[in-house]
Amino acid sequence: MKELWDRIVSDGEVIGKDVLKVDSFLNHQIDPVFIMRMGEELAARFSQAGITKVLTIEASGIAVAMAVGLYLKVPVVFAKKSRAVTQREELYTAEVYSFTRREAVQIAVSSRYLRSDDNVLIVDDFLAHGEALKGLVEVVKQSGAQLAGAGIVIEKKFQHGGDILRSAGIRIESLAAIEFMENGKITFA
Amino acid sequence: MKELWDRIVSDGEVIGKDVLKVDSFLNHQIDPVFIMRMGEELAARFSQAGITKVLTIEASGIAVAMAVGLYLKVPVVFAKKSRAVTQREELYTAEVYSFTRREAVQIAVSSRYLRSDDNVLIVDDFLAHGEALKGLVEVVKQSGAQLAGAGIVIEKKFQHGGDILRSAGIRIESLAAIEFMENGKITFA
Repeated sequence: MKELWDRIVSDGEVIGKDVLKVDSFLNHQIDPVFIMRMGEELAARFSQAGITKVLTIEASGIAVAMAVGLYLKVPVVFAKKSRAVTQREELYTAEVYSFTRREAVQIAVSSRYLRSDDNVLIVDDFLAHGEALKGLVEVVKQSGAQLAGAGIVIEKKFQHGGDILRSAGIRIESLAAIEFMENGKITFA
Repeated sequence: MKELWDRIVSDGEVIGKDVLKVDSFLNHQIDPVFIMRMGEELAARFSQAGITKVLTIEASGIAVAMAVGLYLKVPVVFAKKSRAVTQREELYTAEVYSFTRREAVQIAVSSRYLRSDDNVLIVDDFLAHGEALKGLVEVVKQSGAQLAGAGIVIEKKFQHGGDILRSAGIRIESLAAIEFMENGKITFA
């Protein structure tokens, strides 16, 4: 998505070889109009897939997921992060390791909001090592729902999460895929 | 907002006298179309206030805040929660105590995204004891920005956060205000 590439180049901040901060429009400040255009584009790529539910993870995924849900006219569920989950209803859970925070968190989705007859599109802001996405895939598996694929805003291909998940047969669509980053410069795939 | 009252009554789950769970459309699963209508209504109440920025807190506030930002055509900033903040740029921070989780977290907003010439509308999903809102007000104060008020989806009036903040001169608009809850029944103000 050309507009996103331009925005990453103009507003993104590359730190070292691994970290890309896009706090000005995606991860801390949100540009709602732009988020809607990105949601529309992700929704378009899965418009023929018969999606019944969008699944994301708090917090940065929520805005884009909501835009996708709005265009696909389906509910959005966000997995909750916590250390220790104490809820009464049955939960689908997975461990997600964060390389940024260097800790594992548990993510949880209530069985009320993911059902075996759902066809799920996972949406997230970033795909790097794929830890969050693997956790969400695990949650979908536990629910017995079908997984239609994943729609990602920015994929950092050099961290190979996308390769691993694609070779497991999962359809992944990224709006911007970054081949590598060096000396503050970004090379798109 | 009549539609919200009906939704709270039909889908909400009252636990004891204090806790209202609305996980089916606001706090875990989101109904994007309904979220947009609520955002539109909150935006309408502040349409003459000259808002330049919407401020919320992760995670449940983000969807509604994004809808409000979309209608007001302004950026949305979400305060981040963390135990220990290590970021490079200057931060505005506040301590927020959560009665639900029985712990205090630090919330932080980068000085890049709240400026002294901003006129801020705070948006959040719930107003109960007012802890989150007080933290957000403190963050706005630190930035030197003007505070136009707060737009809340559900206010639990019997927990008095709204009283305290209104008597401090803050304009608060709630889409649904609950007077009390008893034996699973909800009485609106």
